[in-house]
Amino acid sequence: MFLQETLAAFITRMDGIAPSNFVPLFAPLLATAEAENAPIVLAGVLLSLVIIYLSSKLGSEVAKRLDFPPVLGELVAGVIVGVSALHLIVFPEGGLTANDSIVMQALSLINTLTPEAVTDIFSSQSEVISVLAELGVIVLLFEIGLESDLRQLKEVGIQATVVACVGVVVPFVAGTAGLMTIFGVPAIPAIFAGAALTATSIGITSKVLSELNQLKSKEGQIIVGAAVIDDVLGIVVLAVVASLAKTGEIDTGNVIYLIVSSTVFLFGSIFLGGVFNKFFVKTVEALKTRGNVVIPAFIFAFFMAFLGNAIHLEAILGAFAAGLVLDESDARNELDELVKPIADLLVPIFFVTVGARADLGVLNPAVPENRAGLLIAVFLVAVAIVGKLVTGWAVFGQPGINRLAIGVGMIPRGEVGLVFAGIGSASGVLSKPLEVSIIIMVILTTFLAPPFLRVAFGQQESSTSESTP
Amino acid sequence: MFLQETLAAFITRMDGIAPSNFVPLFAPLLATAEAENAPIVLAGVLLSLVIIYLSSKLGSEVAKRLDFPPVLGELVAGVIVGVSALHLIVFPEGGLTANDSIVMQALSLINTLTPEAVTDIFSSQSEVISVLAELGVIVLLFEIGLESDLRQLKEVGIQATVVACVGVVVPFVAGTAGLMTIFGVPAIPAIFAGAALTATSIGITSKVLSELNQLKSKEGQIIVGAAVIDDVLGIVVLAVVASLAKTGEIDTGNVIYLIVSSTVFLFGSIFLGGVFNKFFVKTVEALKTRGNVVIPAFIFAFFMAFLGNAIHLEAILGAFAAGLVLDESDARNELDELVKPIADLLVPIFFVTVGARADLGVLNPAVPENRAGLLIAVFLVAVAIVGKLVTGWAVFGQPGINRLAIGVGMIPRGEVGLVFAGIGSASGVLSKPLEVSIIIMVILTTFLAPPFLRVAFGQQESSTSESTP
Repeated sequence: MFLQETLAAFITRMDGIAPSNFVPLFAPLLATAEAENAPIVLAGVLLSLVIIYLSSKLGSEVAKRLDFPPVLGELVAGVIVGVSALHLIVFPEGGLTANDSIVMQALSLINTLTPEAVTDIFSSQSEVISVLAELGVIVLLFEIGLESDLRQLKEVGIQATVVACVGVVVPFVAGTAGLMTIFGVPAIPAIFAGAALTATSIGITSKVLSELNQLKSKEGQIIVGAAVIDDVLGIVVLAVVASLAKTGEIDTGNVIYLIVSSTVFLFGSIFLGGVFNKFFVKTVEALKTRGNVVIPAFIFAFFMAFLGNAIHLEAILGAFAAGLVLDESDARNELDELVKPIADLLVPIFFVTVGARADLGVLNPAVPENRAGLLIAVFLVAVAIVGKLVTGWAVFGQPGINRLAIGVGMIPRGEVGLVFAGIGSASGVLSKPLEVSIIIMVILTTFLAPPFLRVAFGQQESSTSESTP
Repeated sequence: MFLQETLAAFITRMDGIAPSNFVPLFAPLLATAEAENAPIVLAGVLLSLVIIYLSSKLGSEVAKRLDFPPVLGELVAGVIVGVSALHLIVFPEGGLTANDSIVMQALSLINTLTPEAVTDIFSSQSEVISVLAELGVIVLLFEIGLESDLRQLKEVGIQATVVACVGVVVPFVAGTAGLMTIFGVPAIPAIFAGAALTATSIGITSKVLSELNQLKSKEGQIIVGAAVIDDVLGIVVLAVVASLAKTGEIDTGNVIYLIVSSTVFLFGSIFLGGVFNKFFVKTVEALKTRGNVVIPAFIFAFFMAFLGNAIHLEAILGAFAAGLVLDESDARNELDELVKPIADLLVPIFFVTVGARADLGVLNPAVPENRAGLLIAVFLVAVAIVGKLVTGWAVFGQPGINRLAIGVGMIPRGEVGLVFAGIGSASGVLSKPLEVSIIIMVILTTFLAPPFLRVAFGQQESSTSESTP
């Protein structure tokens, strides 16, 4: 390396001037290998991001045109560019190496790299993309928090709470018990999969409802209210389950600690949020430089995410609480607009990498040992649909209400279900077949809900068309 | 680890179902150590980002109130949180380890970590912050490209070109020659430092001019025009110099290749940009999902950055060209608004880490061997000021023009100078004293220009106050 020789010559030269203080002068030489790889790591990250963005946009646009939620297209796009098909976005896990990555092969073509450098660069760029994806889901839950409305809960009140609770308990108990008894899955992965069944996607549900002009109907209000409560419940469940997965024990004391601390953390931050909001608005008004809204908001979101992580809950729980708190502030409309492009840029990295990590190969029925995974997927999908459909019949004191529509409205797991799959995948607690079964369940429930919801509301439209013009 | 035992038990159990397909089931176990560290790496990144954002906002607000450019405050804030003072944001370079990082000490307090895990996590989170900083400077130059206006160049024409060329040639030749002859610095670091002297900050200059209501004056137009040309020249010079630093040779063929390829790349992409712009606007209009403007724009920016990197120029050159191209499109106003919050979030990471990496300790005059570095800094600052001041007297055919104001307006190096320092630091070509001297030069020229510019225009204000109400 001529660079090293030049540096060595320079060091010798400077050494004449600085005979004793050798360490700081020598330091650049020590860092040379890493510094030499740095532009190539950057190139790998840039190329991966271009692939992620291209595929996510293609996927979401195709999904949109086929009348499916765009997020579904991003997930499927991830599956296509990932380990299951094109091998463009792969991670050093499941026995995969740099040789399995087309991006690394491209980088090796345009740069002269040693095998060690290839391994280092693959590992570094994968690490960066993984953290970017985690920042993506943090920003996503910050945004969901900003979109959720605590006041809405009070209006739809008890009905929404009953629907949410039934929609959490039934799929969780049925899913976990079924996996353990029928399929012999150990407790922790079974609980994780059961927890993934509890989610309801507020994003997808409210989007579909608004497309059907049913957002303000009684059914629509109950669904959205229940989805908001379910969102909070789901995140508490996720925090509890993810922490269990980390320590690996079902410790009643730990469960109580987690339920209490997540509840205290979530509600505590919301109650303290009133005080903080005034401080936040004053800070935003006092700041005179660029980023006066967005930087304080992200300091709060990232700090809450760090705090959620630090007290051994989940980073996303903190980000969600931060969003709920800032949703009550006077700066919320400006903040909503500013968070959008940031979310647009970071969130697709999360969805595409979740899809890319899912190895659909294990669901190939031609391989005998895969059939267990497929059976699990069929079971999970059945529990996912039935467990949410029954919530419609938990509504009481509302004669003539469209119970089917409410049940169907709770079905899509969407991004929240994917969060479970992603965290399960990252924590290593889920076996590949179980992980892919969950993703199949999320895909199918998210796929089926929009057309089902249209049918469920369509039946009603002819009978009560005067109430919803 | 109970988690591993659980997984092992699960694997044994699933093995009964799947006796031969062991690899995909075993894979999560192999990835366990890395997966276990992942939430702590995320915690480290989140905590580092909170520190970076807090310090950058404090720094920029203090600078603003003291009437200095905010970016200067971010840099100084970086110096304070970095290796020179608080050790909150440090990188594994210059002999620093995880023990030197307060963030790592905090993470070790709240998690039980082995020494190997601490080293791995420190290295991973530093790598992520470094890449985020590089994405920050890419977004910054994309934004500068979006703010630059090719049409403006035509109006101020030849005068601006002359000012820009004199302001590149004089400091570069004087700086490089002086460093080599007076200080005995080898050719490559001397050329790098000389190149850093050529920069003019279009951001700072145009911001200060607008604050003084001089943006539309003849002097203001010449300064902004020259700063735009200087921006392009500076990036070409940077690309040439950085590539030289990478290969380590002053190869005339290589220099010609780089000048030609960077010129062809920059102007080629601008000319082809006309065609691309129509395609871009059509794409944006055709897309129906969220991020319809921002994702195509960043696909283009990141792809151009990758291309700049891939043809062994610089990523920032590609991002700048992408910005210049999209500046001509019909979607530019919407794009400007959308890029702002993204830049607000990513750019401070770049400035703070540049400051944090700069070890001001080597400039302590109490240490005898540091005096060489200090002497270099004094020399660089002198060349930086005089080399730009003379540009005012290069203007011809404009009787009564405020030559002093033009010269002073070209002085601030700002973000472009920091890009040189940052890339020099990352490439390892600069010795610590030389690197810190460049940063001192950037800080001082950026510090001195705004008050000097006020004085230079203040003198004129009394005589020609009718032309600038």
